[in-house]
Amino acid sequence: MSTLLSVDEVRHYILSQLSPLPVETISLEQAFRRVLATPILAPSDLPPFTNSSVDGFAVRALDVKGASQLHPIELKVFADIPAGFSPHFTLPPGHAARIMTGAPLPNGADAVVPIENTNLSFHDKATQPPYSVQVFNPVNPGDNVRPRGQDILRGHPVFEPGHRLRPQDIGLLAALGISHIEVYRQPRLGIFSTGDELIPLGTAPIPGKIYDSNRLMLKMLIEQAGGEVIDLGIVTDTLDNVRSALDTARRNNVDLVLTSGGVSVGVFDVVRHLIEQEGERHLWRVNMRPGKPILFGRYHEMPILSLPGNPVSAFVGFWVFVRPAIYRLAGLPFVPPLRLKAILEHPIESDGRESYLRAIVSYTNGQRLARLTGHQGSGNLFGLSQANALLIVPAGVKSLPTGHEVDIWPLDDSLI
Amino acid sequence: MSTLLSVDEVRHYILSQLSPLPVETISLEQAFRRVLATPILAPSDLPPFTNSSVDGFAVRALDVKGASQLHPIELKVFADIPAGFSPHFTLPPGHAARIMTGAPLPNGADAVVPIENTNLSFHDKATQPPYSVQVFNPVNPGDNVRPRGQDILRGHPVFEPGHRLRPQDIGLLAALGISHIEVYRQPRLGIFSTGDELIPLGTAPIPGKIYDSNRLMLKMLIEQAGGEVIDLGIVTDTLDNVRSALDTARRNNVDLVLTSGGVSVGVFDVVRHLIEQEGERHLWRVNMRPGKPILFGRYHEMPILSLPGNPVSAFVGFWVFVRPAIYRLAGLPFVPPLRLKAILEHPIESDGRESYLRAIVSYTNGQRLARLTGHQGSGNLFGLSQANALLIVPAGVKSLPTGHEVDIWPLDDSLI
Repeated sequence: MSTLLSVDEVRHYILSQLSPLPVETISLEQAFRRVLATPILAPSDLPPFTNSSVDGFAVRALDVKGASQLHPIELKVFADIPAGFSPHFTLPPGHAARIMTGAPLPNGADAVVPIENTNLSFHDKATQPPYSVQVFNPVNPGDNVRPRGQDILRGHPVFEPGHRLRPQDIGLLAALGISHIEVYRQPRLGIFSTGDELIPLGTAPIPGKIYDSNRLMLKMLIEQAGGEVIDLGIVTDTLDNVRSALDTARRNNVDLVLTSGGVSVGVFDVVRHLIEQEGERHLWRVNMRPGKPILFGRYHEMPILSLPGNPVSAFVGFWVFVRPAIYRLAGLPFVPPLRLKAILEHPIESDGRESYLRAIVSYTNGQRLARLTGHQGSGNLFGLSQANALLIVPAGVKSLPTGHEVDIWPLDDSLI
Repeated sequence: MSTLLSVDEVRHYILSQLSPLPVETISLEQAFRRVLATPILAPSDLPPFTNSSVDGFAVRALDVKGASQLHPIELKVFADIPAGFSPHFTLPPGHAARIMTGAPLPNGADAVVPIENTNLSFHDKATQPPYSVQVFNPVNPGDNVRPRGQDILRGHPVFEPGHRLRPQDIGLLAALGISHIEVYRQPRLGIFSTGDELIPLGTAPIPGKIYDSNRLMLKMLIEQAGGEVIDLGIVTDTLDNVRSALDTARRNNVDLVLTSGGVSVGVFDVVRHLIEQEGERHLWRVNMRPGKPILFGRYHEMPILSLPGNPVSAFVGFWVFVRPAIYRLAGLPFVPPLRLKAILEHPIESDGRESYLRAIVSYTNGQRLARLTGHQGSGNLFGLSQANALLIVPAGVKSLPTGHEVDIWPLDDSLI
């Protein structure tokens, strides 16, 4: 057992042991939340052609100079340009072309008069274009026109590698006609719980046994973080069972095995024993609360991260160590996620470890106020379920007074 | 065309037209992000039995009163209590029982001495319990013991209806042995794009045509908001095609149809026409920028929401109207989501409409600073893809100076 290490030191070591996964090509339909592995340059201009930003009449601005309500200027309507139509004519001087929002501007035209500024009004698809139109307002060249390439020019950088794709990003790639992209492979995590005291959900209660809650929680946390899960179930406390679970994980090409339970100083720490005997292990006592013991090791090259069995320790350990590990495998840059501040509603005692406490943060007069959710035992999932934030007390701090500003980590979107 | 309505009025009307969907029972495995329809009361105490919070020796506190390093108290070891084991004995006075973290405390014992405070140390599963143990420190009754029901007592309320389940909540329900829950049915949205100018991704470019980018973006936004998507494709601008798409949606038991395009004052507004002729429609000009025209109506009872075709208008319309609508169908309470504040880095001009502008928010010295992402045209998906927040300028405001505090809506987790 080595000495106490800081959260940052341990996280830094874990991340140094992991690299972004290999690159694969996927269709844009599958790209939500995936991480780009190569830079994207615009393959074409956007918009791809100069078009009208309103429903109205494409004109030469010079032709409607001086137009007013009292002295409208009448233009002959030369043609109709519905959306999706590509005009192959040049607009003659003294003429207008009826044009729909998004339709290409014809050669010769340099502006569009909105339909509201003419004598014509709302009309139907079936209607023929009118013989002529009266224009009530002048326009400047470029008015109500979106020039080709206004948003982005061909060859311009769109996204850098390491960018996780949001719906709006996928919209942009689709608009650019990009149907396939290169992304990092999605991290695949194997997961199992250890402990002879665990029984699976859906079975009858047994005295002395508890339901396995960590596996389901961690599974969903992994999916939320963008990973894929291979569920290896509950593994009872023998070397053979743990070895067999790890071999199954290897056969499933798992990128990282996550376990909970089995890494304290107890009798039955088979995961630790196995890794010690047959792999490569680093066991740390981390200067944090909850969740002191963390194991990171390898079994035949496959990385393994073991979290404590107490549910709250497992939860906090996930946020602090496993989520950054998944992000690293996924090709995302590490960004420390502590951004929101809140004001303490009551004093807090701490024991000098970096502490992640369950808190309820509320808004009062535009200010975020934080209070703890009752007892902070590392088994207390109820307190965690009542919390909407983790409140971080830095290492070395023993007490914080009412009114102190603290860092919080939102646990759901109620705070943003 | 009715008069300009406020964003709040329109959203309020849409929400008043929708109700939470029927209730269904699902297994906890499927429960991530689902919304509870009935209150959950704890079916049992948690922890279900009094247990040890450390590895050590269960004792009667009285028996080790006055123990010290110099004058250890020696107790006979009566039994071994591994995790998962249910002890049926009563600990005799003057004895200790070796106990693992999480294992049930035997009758008679009232505290646990951690193994570090004894003459014994780390040992292996295979080891037999020792004949006796020397205790170096006294304990008080209750020390290192987690009493039955400490976290939550049987019958205590755990979650209210309307709560969206997070991984930690599912962990708690699993710990309580709850394997099935009642939730609101997941909203099912039908989605199609309209416009003769649209071509599907993966086809060759055609002059005058653009790739359909909204459908993919909206599809992912719906999934992100917790909805399921029935993709009805691109629907070209005829009444028959739109009617056929809506009939397909009805056959698929769609709860809400979402369309983009086809609701401006243009010629080809077939969606609006169809709803006018064969359904029930409300068309509004909303006092917002971008995304003025919004249509809400019904086709044979099935609600329909139509967003403008410009990608940024469709995106903002989704955040402002569609996401709350999905949340309403899903059984979530409406909570106005504007919480984060930022300081303007430059002055902003607005036109008096409630404006949702694309912004980049960064941290400098712990302060959030906001600047706009170049031109704010409603077709500019590139500007949107560069943004990490929407910046809201309230209705009636024409300009805001540098240094003004504004509301922002984070568009990804880079801000929290």
